[in-house]
Amino acid sequence: MTVANGLEQVIVAETEISFVDGERGRLVFRGRWAKDLSDTHRFEEVAHLLWYGSLPSGEEKADIAAKWASEREISAGVKAVIDAIPREVGMMSVLRTAVSALETEGFGYPPTLEQAASITMKLPTIVAYCYRRLKGLAPVEPRTDLRHTANYLYMLKGEEASPVHVQALEAYLNLMMEHGMNSSTFAARVIASTRSDLISAVVGAIGALKGPLHGGAPSLVMNMLRDIGSKDRAEAWIRSKLENDGRIMGFGHRVYKTKDPRAEALRLIASRLSDSDPCLELAVHVEETAIRLLEEYKPGKKLYTNVEFYAAAVMNAIDFEEELFTPTFVVTRSVGWCAHILEAAAGRLIYPDSAYVGQLPSE
Amino acid sequence: MTVANGLEQVIVAETEISFVDGERGRLVFRGRWAKDLSDTHRFEEVAHLLWYGSLPSGEEKADIAAKWASEREISAGVKAVIDAIPREVGMMSVLRTAVSALETEGFGYPPTLEQAASITMKLPTIVAYCYRRLKGLAPVEPRTDLRHTANYLYMLKGEEASPVHVQALEAYLNLMMEHGMNSSTFAARVIASTRSDLISAVVGAIGALKGPLHGGAPSLVMNMLRDIGSKDRAEAWIRSKLENDGRIMGFGHRVYKTKDPRAEALRLIASRLSDSDPCLELAVHVEETAIRLLEEYKPGKKLYTNVEFYAAAVMNAIDFEEELFTPTFVVTRSVGWCAHILEAAAGRLIYPDSAYVGQLPSE
Repeated sequence: MTVANGLEQVIVAETEISFVDGERGRLVFRGRWAKDLSDTHRFEEVAHLLWYGSLPSGEEKADIAAKWASEREISAGVKAVIDAIPREVGMMSVLRTAVSALETEGFGYPPTLEQAASITMKLPTIVAYCYRRLKGLAPVEPRTDLRHTANYLYMLKGEEASPVHVQALEAYLNLMMEHGMNSSTFAARVIASTRSDLISAVVGAIGALKGPLHGGAPSLVMNMLRDIGSKDRAEAWIRSKLENDGRIMGFGHRVYKTKDPRAEALRLIASRLSDSDPCLELAVHVEETAIRLLEEYKPGKKLYTNVEFYAAAVMNAIDFEEELFTPTFVVTRSVGWCAHILEAAAGRLIYPDSAYVGQLPSE
Repeated sequence: MTVANGLEQVIVAETEISFVDGERGRLVFRGRWAKDLSDTHRFEEVAHLLWYGSLPSGEEKADIAAKWASEREISAGVKAVIDAIPREVGMMSVLRTAVSALETEGFGYPPTLEQAASITMKLPTIVAYCYRRLKGLAPVEPRTDLRHTANYLYMLKGEEASPVHVQALEAYLNLMMEHGMNSSTFAARVIASTRSDLISAVVGAIGALKGPLHGGAPSLVMNMLRDIGSKDRAEAWIRSKLENDGRIMGFGHRVYKTKDPRAEALRLIASRLSDSDPCLELAVHVEETAIRLLEEYKPGKKLYTNVEFYAAAVMNAIDFEEELFTPTFVVTRSVGWCAHILEAAAGRLIYPDSAYVGQLPSE
């Protein structure tokens, strides 16, 4: 009897959605390199690829842009649910409750691509509504004349963002949209496999992404960079950390045994945003130092920069506060979750086994 | 490369909580036969066993009864969240949203036994509030002078229930409290393994139990019995069903290759409640006929009565409407979920793999 603790390397499904090549540090979305898509395509186009299996044609592009933009508004009922939650409750909790409240008759079984688009279009509106409420600011209604990413920034900030910020955020969202069989995606698939609804599965995934071992740690990278403070302090800081508890935030990944391809892409985005930004310069220096010292202290462990490291740098460069890091991850990963939910909803019920190691009663 | 589709017979964890012996049709809760506990112990005592590993002593019994009873009230904020949801939304959706809204600072990581008790004590109050709202009735506040099960019935009906009904419901709740590594429990464990909070994990489990392949089908048994109508029609009805799509509601279980021990126990409870109830007589007749015909049409498949079959009969005998079937399952299964969440929160991150079967880009 073998216990597949953590299910590491256990293949739980065949999928056509994405391929995370951990050995070679590559990421494929439906037959295309994710890194090539991130900079050259709109959020809507990459979502279309992940959902429909192909990039939209010229005509489809205009169609989905208009159709999806019309799905951005959230009902007064959902706003009332959010307003009923105490202000001090964390963004991810509020988001989980608000998404759960999206359910109306339109979201019953089976999950559909229309439902996937609807929830994905509403998520930025929900996040922006929650964020502005947290900050004591009046809510900003979505605009249909802006594309998805520009509208998200507009609703958060209350004014149109610079094209440079829109482009950087869009590249970030595109890169983070999907990533194989991680914990939140798997939670969503388990829930969908019972023939439950799309909302239930997405709500479960949000709950999983809330955990710091999964989606909840990017702000810790910022804390670390802030704590290091300047380039000349990096080596001593990292050595001390490695000699004590040994964990450096933003390095090491369960799957990647080389650099996370998303980290590479995000570094380019961050450097384009602010090539003389001291925070980014520090991050690059910390990266080089950490990789060198990780190999010295943990030889052969192959600990490289993961996506959280430069995600924090990009978020910082577009003036996103830490409260927005994980919710913004939800805004985009919703696309991948929904693609997987549609696959799993048609598949076999996920119902594993456990080994009882307690006492047995007498017969 | 083997795909563990549905994870059938894949052992994902060691557990001390329960043992589902599918071959021999037996169920163990922490070293005791579940069926022996169901009739002889209070809900609070069985929950204590599952959470703490032992039945409470005489002194502990009074302690937990008082302490847990004080946790029953839900805040005005949670009520406001429920009130903001349109009335026509199904009970399980409202429940998912309301439980998500329970989160306050007290529910952060790590999950604790105190949190487990708090959420389990609040669930009946939430279900009763939602149910009475659905029916257009004024809410009934919890009473601390009643035990858990009696209070649940009191809040639902607005008056104290008969001891016979309390006893029947309590036996039902005790039997259904925990059942190994099923889909909802596993979803909860995946979420908890990310170091997310107890509420997120329970909310994910509710979403999974909402699926008809898991918790959402007991009302279909009632539909079937109603459709069959009388004993003399049973054989023809079942034969016709087996000759067409082949699925008889309430028979067959992923794990049990013999009678579900809970079905046996529930039949006894139902028969004690109403030994001349025509509905129960019909159910017993349908059971016998279905088992005989299933063996005739699907020899060797070992399809026996599952828990849903007599769960419906018990629910019916205590005048529970179908809207209450799955929510009442949540009210009690919350105990098992929380026990598993505590185990998983200290364990390894659950992060499986998938096999990409789509196209690869050119290099």
